[in-house]
Amino acid sequence: MAIAIECNLVPRRSDARPNAIATTARLLQQQGYAATGLEQVLAESGAPKGSFYFHFPGGKEQLAVEALESSGAFVAAVVADVVAAADTPADALRAFAALQAEQLRTSDYALGCPVATTALEMSTASDAIREASRAALDSWIAPFAASLAEAGVDDPERLATLAVATLEGALVIARTRRDAAVVTELAEVVARQIEAATSGRLSP
Amino acid sequence: MAIAIECNLVPRRSDARPNAIATTARLLQQQGYAATGLEQVLAESGAPKGSFYFHFPGGKEQLAVEALESSGAFVAAVVADVVAAADTPADALRAFAALQAEQLRTSDYALGCPVATTALEMSTASDAIREASRAALDSWIAPFAASLAEAGVDDPERLATLAVATLEGALVIARTRRDAAVVTELAEVVARQIEAATSGRLSP
Repeated sequence: MAIAIECNLVPRRSDARPNAIATTARLLQQQGYAATGLEQVLAESGAPKGSFYFHFPGGKEQLAVEALESSGAFVAAVVADVVAAADTPADALRAFAALQAEQLRTSDYALGCPVATTALEMSTASDAIREASRAALDSWIAPFAASLAEAGVDDPERLATLAVATLEGALVIARTRRDAAVVTELAEVVARQIEAATSGRLSP
Repeated sequence: MAIAIECNLVPRRSDARPNAIATTARLLQQQGYAATGLEQVLAESGAPKGSFYFHFPGGKEQLAVEALESSGAFVAAVVADVVAAADTPADALRAFAALQAEQLRTSDYALGCPVATTALEMSTASDAIREASRAALDSWIAPFAASLAEAGVDDPERLATLAVATLEGALVIARTRRDAAVVTELAEVVARQIEAATSGRLSP
């Protein structure tokens, strides 16, 4: 009897939870945290309102944290793939920047970084959102830093952080200009700096 | 008689309009566009509700545009001052980054870029806000680009854009880490790149 009640409360194979997270991740990327209401998440994800606080007892903040974790992990996997596929760390940065520029263009400049908007809005107000944002950004820096370390540069962490920071800033500029060229152009400048650092290291 | 009526509608020496703009600029910097309601602007600026739509017939969007113009001009003046006072473009970037880092620390990481949050939230939804954001960012890039052009580098616009983009990205990372060191560290990397570009130009 207890099991039957539990089954009523938590329908097996429900997609409500992952759907709500995926919808929130998309809305945070498009419009940020404050503009994203629970009503919109429920409407667009098709999740039933009744079970929302069962799935997300922490409410909108918890939902946002899980959405940032999901987006962060997705982008981290893309970075890892790009790094694994590229011949050099510089080429990995070029390839990742090209993907970002492509996403800007195909979304009519609606889709930039999935984390930055919410991070800027909420890092002061919510430690949980700040921490999820920090973890996401660090998880994108890490694969670049690992490949730079393998290439033997002196300060791989700093150069990898520069790469991600440059892309973040370029995405802001690109969206205000409705021109993605700045993303690949600035990545090229950093890629050449990476090449200078790696070639300097290989033939001192 | 017509003049008297006009004087009633527009009180001379009223601070309501500039106060509303300054309050909005601060709130956009702290929390972004969607979280900033007109009620909060009126309450914190002390502006009378009755005259709001007289001063800002375009409503919240117009208020935000004027706030971004105001913040943009303020930062542009700081950049111009820093560039004028510094011995080299690289030192100007170091000095500007130090100011940004100081503002982060003294505000307990609440005050980063006054434009980026709103730009990311609203560039898709509002062409007027997107354009005001673009103009602000361009006005910060311009003084750096002019000083780099004067120093004789090959592509001053691109290197100046890299400087501003790096700072924008570093501010996102710094706020999520509650650590401003990344702002001055990444600026230092770009400053050295600027020095390499300028010394390469001066002694080819």
